Amino acid sequence: MLNENIIRQLAEIVGPENLSVASVDRLTHSFDATQQRFLPDVVLHPGCTEEISRILRLANREKIPVIPRGAGSGFTGGSLAIHGGIILVLTRMNRILEIDTDNLIAVVEPGVVTGDLQRAVERLGLFYPPDPASKDFSTLGGNIAECAGGPRCIKYGVTRDYVLGLTVVTPTGSVIHTGGRTIKNVVGYDLTRLFVGAEGTLGVVTRITLRLLPKPEARKTMLVTFDSIDGAARAVSAIIRGKIIPTTLEFMDASAIACVRKAASLNLPEACQAVLIIEVDGDADHLDAQAERVLDIIAPLGVLETRIAATAEQSEALWQVRRAISPSLRQLNPHKFNEDIVVPRSQVPEMIRALEEISKRYAVPIINFGHAGDGNIHVNVMVDLNLPDMETTVKEVLHEIFRTTVAMNGSISGEHGIGTAKAPFITLELTPETLEVMAAIKLALDPNNIMNPGKIFPSSPITHLSRATDPSTP
Amino acid sequence: MLNENIIRQLAEIVGPENLSVASVDRLTHSFDATQQRFLPDVVLHPGCTEEISRILRLANREKIPVIPRGAGSGFTGGSLAIHGGIILVLTRMNRILEIDTDNLIAVVEPGVVTGDLQRAVERLGLFYPPDPASKDFSTLGGNIAECAGGPRCIKYGVTRDYVLGLTVVTPTGSVIHTGGRTIKNVVGYDLTRLFVGAEGTLGVVTRITLRLLPKPEARKTMLVTFDSIDGAARAVSAIIRGKIIPTTLEFMDASAIACVRKAASLNLPEACQAVLIIEVDGDADHLDAQAERVLDIIAPLGVLETRIAATAEQSEALWQVRRAISPSLRQLNPHKFNEDIVVPRSQVPEMIRALEEISKRYAVPIINFGHAGDGNIHVNVMVDLNLPDMETTVKEVLHEIFRTTVAMNGSISGEHGIGTAKAPFITLELTPETLEVMAAIKLALDPNNIMNPGKIFPSSPITHLSRATDPSTP
Repeated sequence: MLNENIIRQLAEIVGPENLSVASVDRLTHSFDATQQRFLPDVVLHPGCTEEISRILRLANREKIPVIPRGAGSGFTGGSLAIHGGIILVLTRMNRILEIDTDNLIAVVEPGVVTGDLQRAVERLGLFYPPDPASKDFSTLGGNIAECAGGPRCIKYGVTRDYVLGLTVVTPTGSVIHTGGRTIKNVVGYDLTRLFVGAEGTLGVVTRITLRLLPKPEARKTMLVTFDSIDGAARAVSAIIRGKIIPTTLEFMDASAIACVRKAASLNLPEACQAVLIIEVDGDADHLDAQAERVLDIIAPLGVLETRIAATAEQSEALWQVRRAISPSLRQLNPHKFNEDIVVPRSQVPEMIRALEEISKRYAVPIINFGHAGDGNIHVNVMVDLNLPDMETTVKEVLHEIFRTTVAMNGSISGEHGIGTAKAPFITLELTPETLEVMAAIKLALDPNNIMNPGKIFPSSPITHLSRATDPSTP
Repeated sequence: MLNENIIRQLAEIVGPENLSVASVDRLTHSFDATQQRFLPDVVLHPGCTEEISRILRLANREKIPVIPRGAGSGFTGGSLAIHGGIILVLTRMNRILEIDTDNLIAVVEPGVVTGDLQRAVERLGLFYPPDPASKDFSTLGGNIAECAGGPRCIKYGVTRDYVLGLTVVTPTGSVIHTGGRTIKNVVGYDLTRLFVGAEGTLGVVTRITLRLLPKPEARKTMLVTFDSIDGAARAVSAIIRGKIIPTTLEFMDASAIACVRKAASLNLPEACQAVLIIEVDGDADHLDAQAERVLDIIAPLGVLETRIAATAEQSEALWQVRRAISPSLRQLNPHKFNEDIVVPRSQVPEMIRALEEISKRYAVPIINFGHAGDGNIHVNVMVDLNLPDMETTVKEVLHEIFRTTVAMNGSISGEHGIGTAKAPFITLELTPETLEVMAAIKLALDPNNIMNPGKIFPSSPITHLSRATDPSTP
């Protein structure tokens, strides 16, 4: 527990109305989407960079852990106060400070909800592409901490590709400015991208300069069913080899389709073993031709049926098939381990086969869907942890999944981060030498290890697995 | 000078045929495009990662500076041995190890010439977009060290956007692997992008995994002359606001046009005050419509004349106007200070006006051209350093240019890096706090400061200005 003197100093910095030690506030800020609970000592709602700088100076002097938090919707424990300390809630800093339509730039505070920014820039004919499934509640600060992705990354890239500059309060309380307002900038080390994806372990991002694009004129959605996962996977490669980079190439495997069938009457063909939702965007007068080319390319690859949306409503209806997965999952088993692996695109069918094999061997349902275009598979291991030995089984299953992923030149996290959930597995992917370099950077910037301690690095004392039971999924 | 014992150990590592202390070899590796000269003690041509690891272990133990070098074509002194030591020439490591057409990935060694990779992937229908003007001689290792750009960045981004993973030998000789083979990867800190643009001060890149794109089917080049620089600048913004992101938007201001007129008969209209070379690429059947839209959009903005290339030969002829600048520059004055500033796109006309004013005030010709789409202006200060006080004048002129750039929210280096040439000016852009964070990272990774010492940081003992007289320009 923090002593009264420190609490008083913190209250002076943020104002007493923006500090709470009440049990209810500590409890409501004790968990994220992993459903683990760690009570912080105090919850702060700072209002500006200067306050955060003063908080970090104090915390650094007193060696108090500081955990930045946005919406708390992360899947890997990034905003959990696993060592207690200060939860630094950034949702008061939620202003869109500027949208520069000439230079296609937005400047925002970290507490802005991603979807709010998207709607604001779209009203001006602009476009902020990164679209994590959580976009209607997760914040841009959180998106930056985890380097969030989403379905549109195959064409548009991930969060890091849109961050031009940051204001960051370092763990010792310095305020620094990285990058700027231009795409080209090679002045010193690329600190901007060092902070993107650092999961709040290197500092607190307090202002964000983002690159925008012109909003594509139109989009066209297609839902294609295949008689095999290989056909769907070959379709993905064939489309890209055909010089078309779709906006999204979402897939569902047989396990996900079976799940959806039980939950809703979506009228998918009986023989359907894989679904691709393909979206193209761009100039309206060019989309029909693009869609036709896509369908021509994939026609020989075991296509059972094709549905093309002619209107926005029809497009929504097609996406319903994909959105039906998450609610239907919960009918299988109460506990979901929602993993987020990524393999080179061509390895997707082999990875799916490996997942099927693991599922059978351990007699545990594994439901797979995700972003086929960039090889990002959301692997949902559905179990009932109340059953005996299930915790051990899950650990083994996850270990096998991650080991197989890395063996296929993949990565154990595509867009959710490491946090506490995957920290025990990080050595499967990173060598001790690589981790040493990361640890050296952490130590150089945060000598007292106050910024979000216990995350990312395998020495994390928390080895609980992530247990998201939240209805929202990626 | 290095003692005989160390030279012997180095010869054992790389083989005596790949080590030289001969004056002629040290001399030919003593300079880059800045035309400064610093003799290294020894020139090594290592053949693999393992040799480089052994070299760095030895150098770290003995505290010998190590300067990685590709083609030596940098404009900011990045490959100069300003403290002597080992020049580590990476041109023997020039194999394209893999081109994966399914996953759109290339794996290369750092000594591969950028243009060679481009041609190799284009033969397979693929595309590596970054295209620094030096691409036919500069290496991918050098491109990564400086985060090279080029004309196509407005649509395709810079080198950093294409680097998926690296093998790096750290200053203490560890071999680490960053990133991987997927676009999405959030496993630990983004070391990949920390090394991109680090100018060889944090380690030696020995293997590079690059992202490729499908090769656009066709491109179309237009040359448009304007009656004012404002018209050209407004054209740039209008095109982008019109939802078209051209492949290139190259501009020449009145000073560059005047230069070219003297040198070649290019038949530009008399009233021409600015030239834009606009290129669009994509599906062949879509390009005519795109080009028409571009021309419709810019028609009201003071267009004097439009030339559209119907063939590849005609396209080449249009680019001749742009390529005529560099050779013509040398007729003005013998010494060229080739700077590389970048401002937000909308500030280009104001920056050009400021440059014209500086040019008049100091009575020094300043010729401007570059990449209007991303605000990247190549500012060529043309002087005769044999004239009295000219060195002082140039320093003042450059200082004013950089100060003005930063005041316009710009950056003092868009694609050439800092090296020694801009180290004295870096504090105009970066605060002491930001530099401190960079220095802390440098110290953490390179405790004995052996990797390319004296570059980037303002404490660099070398404050000579860059004096490129090389005919090749960006």
